[in-house]
Amino acid sequence: MTKLRFGIIGYGAQGSTYASFIEQGMVESMDLVAVCDIDEAKQAKLKQEFPSKKIYSDYKDMIISGEVDAIITTVPHYLHPEMATFALENGVHVLNEKPAGVYTKQVKALNEFAASKQDVTYAIMFNQRNNPLYQKIKQIVEDGDIGPIRRTNWIITTWWRPQPYYDQSAWRATWGGEGGGVLVNQAPHQLDLIQWIAGVPTKVYSKIKHGFRRDIAVEDEVTAVMEYENGATGVFVTCTHDLLGTDRLEILGDKGKIVVEDSKTVTVKRLKESENELNENMDMEDVKRLFMGQMNTEDFYSTETFTEESAWGEQHSGVLENFARHILHGEELLAPGAEGINGVRLANAIHLSTWIGEEVSIKDFDDDLYLSELNKRIKEEGKFDLQS
Amino acid sequence: MTKLRFGIIGYGAQGSTYASFIEQGMVESMDLVAVCDIDEAKQAKLKQEFPSKKIYSDYKDMIISGEVDAIITTVPHYLHPEMATFALENGVHVLNEKPAGVYTKQVKALNEFAASKQDVTYAIMFNQRNNPLYQKIKQIVEDGDIGPIRRTNWIITTWWRPQPYYDQSAWRATWGGEGGGVLVNQAPHQLDLIQWIAGVPTKVYSKIKHGFRRDIAVEDEVTAVMEYENGATGVFVTCTHDLLGTDRLEILGDKGKIVVEDSKTVTVKRLKESENELNENMDMEDVKRLFMGQMNTEDFYSTETFTEESAWGEQHSGVLENFARHILHGEELLAPGAEGINGVRLANAIHLSTWIGEEVSIKDFDDDLYLSELNKRIKEEGKFDLQS
Repeated sequence: MTKLRFGIIGYGAQGSTYASFIEQGMVESMDLVAVCDIDEAKQAKLKQEFPSKKIYSDYKDMIISGEVDAIITTVPHYLHPEMATFALENGVHVLNEKPAGVYTKQVKALNEFAASKQDVTYAIMFNQRNNPLYQKIKQIVEDGDIGPIRRTNWIITTWWRPQPYYDQSAWRATWGGEGGGVLVNQAPHQLDLIQWIAGVPTKVYSKIKHGFRRDIAVEDEVTAVMEYENGATGVFVTCTHDLLGTDRLEILGDKGKIVVEDSKTVTVKRLKESENELNENMDMEDVKRLFMGQMNTEDFYSTETFTEESAWGEQHSGVLENFARHILHGEELLAPGAEGINGVRLANAIHLSTWIGEEVSIKDFDDDLYLSELNKRIKEEGKFDLQS
Repeated sequence: MTKLRFGIIGYGAQGSTYASFIEQGMVESMDLVAVCDIDEAKQAKLKQEFPSKKIYSDYKDMIISGEVDAIITTVPHYLHPEMATFALENGVHVLNEKPAGVYTKQVKALNEFAASKQDVTYAIMFNQRNNPLYQKIKQIVEDGDIGPIRRTNWIITTWWRPQPYYDQSAWRATWGGEGGGVLVNQAPHQLDLIQWIAGVPTKVYSKIKHGFRRDIAVEDEVTAVMEYENGATGVFVTCTHDLLGTDRLEILGDKGKIVVEDSKTVTVKRLKESENELNENMDMEDVKRLFMGQMNTEDFYSTETFTEESAWGEQHSGVLENFARHILHGEELLAPGAEGINGVRLANAIHLSTWIGEEVSIKDFDDDLYLSELNKRIKEEGKFDLQS
């Protein structure tokens, strides 16, 4: 096998984008051989557009056809786990679209099943992990350049969504159809990145605003305060009503600080010795000098700045290529599917904290409580089936 | 009376600084006529330094001497209310040092007393209100340029304090001696400014770290989530262990956004119509254009940037001069003493939220609960008298 025979389930905005990347030759190790969509009009259009490819209406038929080695699930979030599970069950590799699912219970079940199927690969489309900027940030943190984490802070409000966006379809921005708003739709990458880079928090408190500036049931604004294992605190802010969006990530460590603006401009300050050591080695005379302005704190650190931008499509096509090369040649997987649980759990915990008005444990997250609270909201909405 | 006869109570770092401003002629409408300090060595030094001024060991003697028209209370925080009250009682104008006091109960009592004494002026040293930068920001918000507040966010960690700073004296960074850490000592100006500019929040939740990176009983790191009357959310972060300090204030409104960096560089983005209107006037075709990158959101707003720096001492001497001119000529008071309660209440509410592990009402703040929780901590500390 020199190229991976790939099938796309769901030919919406994402599905068609990935198809175009593969067709344009941006994913060397893949052949797009099949596309599935339940919409008949789309099927007809697909047959015209791709006369040489198999077009399916039922994803199960595509998976058991024997014609695809791997699939991607560009379908509504709730369906990711069941489609991924069916594919793995039938020996077909899976690249799951983000988020891995809507609630931890379904994602955990998927993870457990995937772990039992070592002969097939389960990965997730965390394309931002393929962004050279965040790869560098992760490396800086992993190398210990800024020491253990003391504080994180991400304001990410650069996705403005006007009301007609939400009115596009009946399932959008509903509890039963999508299972959330900005946390589930816009922010999953950042919810993954912050944990990929700075570690998984143990607790979270949130102040979520549901339908704050949009006429929707789900959240359009989120403020979350996280706590890490070592006692450090993190803040995560996102919303969809800020036309003048901010994207600013700050990570403070014992030995330095990273500030990323607009996912593009990075400033790294590295202390020459850790703040702990500096603090311990100070005496009263130093403090006097500090207060008399005779101490130049700039002597204590170096500053590095750089910018990094990735071209449109490179991140996604890179994840597709990495996924294929992992299966074909054993290349290390950039985004193992099992890690998808972290972002889902953090989003669930942020939801739950506001719902119950308390800080919530991420370490001992109560999957059943979350699901029952989610189902309460689906029931009140009265438009969709309950989840189980 | 052409000049206000002024007395300074407490000749520490602040008291001596104000004395030097007045002596250097930076406060035209004031004469420094008396200084009080309980420390005998300081008294001797003061007599040498200021042979023509009255030097007191007891602040009450100074106040009832008939030689001072007004005083300032540059003494430990707990003492501000009782000294201010004694002065007002004896017909002497008061410029209270910030914070107005340590807990709302004592500050409320002072405010009530001051309100009953209309013939004497009660003001507070909120020198940052005399910073042209924050005056401009306040004006922009008051003029409605950015519309009603949607979100505020202030990270202010530019005051690094090493351990020897805390070890200077036995009362520092204790519950009984100071009543708090960074909230009471370093952040009072910002706790005042954020409310002066964006309004008083109604609720707050906090995650405070006591002795997180310093060997102290009180807080050296604070993360607070505030809620405003209109449902908007605010975040306030401060600490004393960040040698690479950040000072970044962001205020989002319905019609624009203000970002202030390092209390110096300001970016104001003004939407041509409010986000509400823009949102309402969008249709499906606009959304398509937005997603296809055919909509330039920069068309929707203008950007103004400016920098503003105030020279060392100008803020404080300006507040002193304004206080004197108010008394002498009826000039409008920049910082009426009664407004000191806001910063104290917010600091108290932030403390209380972490102590009881819940969101706390600022609107209906429980003064007695705060005091009893504070006294619990003073009692555990076992070094100082309880407060009442």
